[in-house]
Amino acid sequence: MNPLDNIRVVLVGTLYTGNVGSACRAMANMGIRNLVLAAPNLQNSWDEGERLAVHATDIMHNRKEFATFEEAVADCVAVVGTTAREGLYRQHVKAPRDCAADLLALAQSGPVALVFGREDKGLLNEEIAQCTHLIRIPVDEGYTSINLSQAVLITCYEFFTASGRYQPPREKAPPAPQAQKMQLMKNWSAMLQEIGFMKSEQEDHFMQGFHRVFSRGVFTRDDAALLLGVARQAIWATKNASEIQKN
Amino acid sequence: MNPLDNIRVVLVGTLYTGNVGSACRAMANMGIRNLVLAAPNLQNSWDEGERLAVHATDIMHNRKEFATFEEAVADCVAVVGTTAREGLYRQHVKAPRDCAADLLALAQSGPVALVFGREDKGLLNEEIAQCTHLIRIPVDEGYTSINLSQAVLITCYEFFTASGRYQPPREKAPPAPQAQKMQLMKNWSAMLQEIGFMKSEQEDHFMQGFHRVFSRGVFTRDDAALLLGVARQAIWATKNASEIQKN
Repeated sequence: MNPLDNIRVVLVGTLYTGNVGSACRAMANMGIRNLVLAAPNLQNSWDEGERLAVHATDIMHNRKEFATFEEAVADCVAVVGTTAREGLYRQHVKAPRDCAADLLALAQSGPVALVFGREDKGLLNEEIAQCTHLIRIPVDEGYTSINLSQAVLITCYEFFTASGRYQPPREKAPPAPQAQKMQLMKNWSAMLQEIGFMKSEQEDHFMQGFHRVFSRGVFTRDDAALLLGVARQAIWATKNASEIQKN
Repeated sequence: MNPLDNIRVVLVGTLYTGNVGSACRAMANMGIRNLVLAAPNLQNSWDEGERLAVHATDIMHNRKEFATFEEAVADCVAVVGTTAREGLYRQHVKAPRDCAADLLALAQSGPVALVFGREDKGLLNEEIAQCTHLIRIPVDEGYTSINLSQAVLITCYEFFTASGRYQPPREKAPPAPQAQKMQLMKNWSAMLQEIGFMKSEQEDHFMQGFHRVFSRGVFTRDDAALLLGVARQAIWATKNASEIQKN
């Protein structure tokens, strides 16, 4: 099974539908689709929520609602509270990146709740006390108050990346083998002498410079082929300069 | 120097001030404070931007604006484009986590631009072609369209965490040493026999179970002290049952 299907986002006492909508879009981006509102305290209409959810309105429409936090997490094997504050009950708080893998392993056995508090007051002490795990999102100490949907995004992002379901993009062209690189150096050396950029006694010095430039990052077969083409054409153009002038 | 001071968020052709405001708050959360708008195409008033920036309006007010993308990044030592799409010029795209450390090292030498395109069309091919690096935020293939300020948040978050400026919270109480754990097992064994939970011949079996339970995660001196207190009190209560009954 996909453990992300057992991750449940629980919003407690949320005030604004816009944050619910933005949270839905963030969840969809990160492959997490179970939304629960616990004791919602919504102050505006769902219009704004619908607008900000964009193409993730299905998550919003499929949400469950419970009158209390206890009911929203009763069947969960882990209840992970998010907190920006220090203090009571908050000593064993971790960064999401440091516990996402362990919690995903738990999610193989049952629902894991990621719990987010009110926009203004976060989670109350009695709610924190019911959490089995606590996380705090790394933020600059100059501005620690993070928007609700932004907190949902970063937390879900860490679970999504920990799930290994995303394959990072990879360079499609294979790296150039040494023989191709040496051919490139040889042809460039010939070209640079042909166009009068360097004399043969300067070859070692200059070619070491070019070799260094071309070796700083991944250097693919395509890159080498491109630069080999330059050398070929520059030699041709120099030898046929009079031809080119005529045209 | 703090390399985050050399990170510049460049928003190209942005349509909505709300996204600028939310991006400012996200930047402030992640300790990044330089905002540039390149060829902005704003369709609404700054009221929404001001509202969503919350306490990060200073970043919005201190922004610079340029008529073209070229001018916005002319002094940068790296120009990092963000793209959600595959295709032309996009073969060497990386996940932000995989390049943030290298780019922060570059930021020690000069400004590094993190470039975000339009809400509807992203970056154009001619803008992508001007980027020295490309990143793509890991998202679920079922919903790859990420909100502009959410993209700014995750990118800045990866640079902030890579900067090492955030110290993850650590358990304050030190882990319990083996001697304290063994004392705990001994006192609990005495208590469990005293209250009639187990007979002495069952000791090995049950105590192995308790030892297992208490060893699954970090187990601190405070945890051990708490459970030693339980044993002490349970023994006292059993021996003084008649006293307690009388009160």
